[in-house]
Amino acid sequence: MADRSRRAVLLGGAAAAGVGAVAAVGMDAFAAGRASDARAAAEAAAVSGNGPRTIPFHGEHQAGIEMVPQAHQSLVSLSLKPDTDRDTIRRLLITLTDDAARLTRGTYALADSEPELALVPARLTVTFGFGRGLVDRVAPGAAPAWLSDLPAFPIDRLHQWWNGGDLVLQIAADDPLTVAHAQRMLLKDSRTATTVKWVQTGFRRAYGSERPTRTTRNLLGQVDGTVNTIPGTDDFAGVVWRGATENPAWLAGGTGFVVRRIEMLLDKWDRLDRTGREQSVGRRMDSGAPLTGRRETDEPDFAATSPSGFPVIAEFAHIRRARTDDPRQRVFRRAYNYDLAPEVGQTSNSGMVFTSYQHDVTAQFLPIQRRLAEVDLLNEWTVPIGSAVFAIPPGCAEGGHIGETLFT
Amino acid sequence: MADRSRRAVLLGGAAAAGVGAVAAVGMDAFAAGRASDARAAAEAAAVSGNGPRTIPFHGEHQAGIEMVPQAHQSLVSLSLKPDTDRDTIRRLLITLTDDAARLTRGTYALADSEPELALVPARLTVTFGFGRGLVDRVAPGAAPAWLSDLPAFPIDRLHQWWNGGDLVLQIAADDPLTVAHAQRMLLKDSRTATTVKWVQTGFRRAYGSERPTRTTRNLLGQVDGTVNTIPGTDDFAGVVWRGATENPAWLAGGTGFVVRRIEMLLDKWDRLDRTGREQSVGRRMDSGAPLTGRRETDEPDFAATSPSGFPVIAEFAHIRRARTDDPRQRVFRRAYNYDLAPEVGQTSNSGMVFTSYQHDVTAQFLPIQRRLAEVDLLNEWTVPIGSAVFAIPPGCAEGGHIGETLFT
Repeated sequence: MADRSRRAVLLGGAAAAGVGAVAAVGMDAFAAGRASDARAAAEAAAVSGNGPRTIPFHGEHQAGIEMVPQAHQSLVSLSLKPDTDRDTIRRLLITLTDDAARLTRGTYALADSEPELALVPARLTVTFGFGRGLVDRVAPGAAPAWLSDLPAFPIDRLHQWWNGGDLVLQIAADDPLTVAHAQRMLLKDSRTATTVKWVQTGFRRAYGSERPTRTTRNLLGQVDGTVNTIPGTDDFAGVVWRGATENPAWLAGGTGFVVRRIEMLLDKWDRLDRTGREQSVGRRMDSGAPLTGRRETDEPDFAATSPSGFPVIAEFAHIRRARTDDPRQRVFRRAYNYDLAPEVGQTSNSGMVFTSYQHDVTAQFLPIQRRLAEVDLLNEWTVPIGSAVFAIPPGCAEGGHIGETLFT
Repeated sequence: MADRSRRAVLLGGAAAAGVGAVAAVGMDAFAAGRASDARAAAEAAAVSGNGPRTIPFHGEHQAGIEMVPQAHQSLVSLSLKPDTDRDTIRRLLITLTDDAARLTRGTYALADSEPELALVPARLTVTFGFGRGLVDRVAPGAAPAWLSDLPAFPIDRLHQWWNGGDLVLQIAADDPLTVAHAQRMLLKDSRTATTVKWVQTGFRRAYGSERPTRTTRNLLGQVDGTVNTIPGTDDFAGVVWRGATENPAWLAGGTGFVVRRIEMLLDKWDRLDRTGREQSVGRRMDSGAPLTGRRETDEPDFAATSPSGFPVIAEFAHIRRARTDDPRQRVFRRAYNYDLAPEVGQTSNSGMVFTSYQHDVTAQFLPIQRRLAEVDLLNEWTVPIGSAVFAIPPGCAEGGHIGETLFT
């Protein structure tokens, strides 16, 4: 809670005073530990809006995780071509690292044929994750045990199209044209060694629409992500970043990355009234407060009962099933909405690109997911249709490249 | 040019001084002729960013046209069900008008099951257009002559999927979640009377990324839309809005709406060097200046020749083919980018949702399109894959409904 208050002062308070952009810059740079960058970016933001803001690419951890999420994101999953060998993978990573470092600074990549599209970084980040296939091809035996497909859950209706991949690029910025350009540049430099497996784009509230630290709503209308560890805190580091003593050593400073594509059955959700929705989630639809509380951040009282003796928060309510007293079972989630053209006869083709970051997928993510898959009222209206797990290697210094620790 | 300077003062100058949001609010309200709204919105924007900004729904003309375009847009084309009769269409329009009036104010629609998603208008507009099918069903003989499919052009590779429709909704806002929610609400209220024909979503630079009046670049990297009539000017009114004496009378205060889905062959475009690109367009890639000038807004000198006697702007360059000395052959264009997941083996699935507004499609749009279809170097890298024409009826007052003049 202290962390939350500190964040509120850093961001919410300043935003309420009308200088949200500057405060948010401060937060990003704070998370990355670069005060001078914060000052320069804040000055640029004050003059020109959000376009010139940058997030440092180099560092102990990769960028794009410990920060207030950008408004737009594209996840690009690539399959290595059969003849792409270890050396080719290394050259690929060197090239893509160089592209990402330049683009995230707001400068164009080498051989960028539309260089002017690169000049609005808008907090662009590019984050790399490795699938089991890539790790096995570079360094057999080096994959952590959790780096493989998740076990099948009875609720899953996975389409092969949306699963897996050898290399994932998480490309995110507050400007959709910036994301589109960066994606194209990175794909052009990947095409000799890879093919595209899937691309999942998503959006959140636009920059400037709301206070950047406000918990956003998903397309169910639900306040989503209240219980989440907070970037810039020791708690966050403990949940997300892999320590120096964890095995394998090449992943120290990295993390585990789970991608779940979750379809929302909005036409069915429509037939549920407001009370039914609140019972399913265990929170009020208006405020996001638990049914036993008044404010979004109030702790749910799972023991509370109604006058007739039933639990106020139902046994199968989402927040009860998601919650645990085991402090290890926590993840950092970062979810985006998708909303595609409806199929014939439907009024929606919508859902969520759920992603979570945790240093150990088996110990942290799986138990939560198992509980939710077993009984969670929300399962009636949400269907997992894609699933993938990646290892996110640590960041690199200037002159290095992402993934270099895997090659040593 | 005087208009352009005036716009520069109104917007560019103020934006450079760091109050872009406020200036842009002033512009929107200026276009709609509501000074008090401008003040209220500007105050809201100064405190809370872009989320609370609203564009008035009611008025002589429909909203969503005479304004600085929003960052996100969804065009939804609907087909009337076979048994949807005149009275049902009228009830549909009354319902959708009410939804649109509420949502664009930042309040929820009646029966909105996710009302909290409606509270961030972010300059939301909903604009209605009627296809030939709707007009014929409501008032046979009332359609203007130009309200039908465009003639076939040799460059077209139209997919039936992306063509036509009986009723189009142009839903646009600076926030993608706002667009998604409004679209869903409007589709829910349309589903008894219509089916979805197509949905085309698109994006421009995010709000706050650039000065709002800056000419944006498309995914070819091209400065696109330099020559465009300017909202808020008499010139704009002459190009776009139908006069009181034009036939049919029910369209007075409305306009004609052309939608063209244009695929960009980015993989092929990549193989063209910078000089080749500049020759194709007739403008410099960096500044957007004509090849005979220095600044974007310089008038091209089509008579200029190189020392060896060739024209500096090639005979088949896009800007030469698009240009005319006939003052009637002008339109207001409002283009959005699309960038979908690449097909297998490709690195892009990208292009533009081109839309133009003109009071007479035959007299204004067709001659330009014919010249471009005949010979335009850019045709090598762009392919029309969808086409539709709609009549945009005038706006309505509170208590009225969009399309009411068609029913009298």
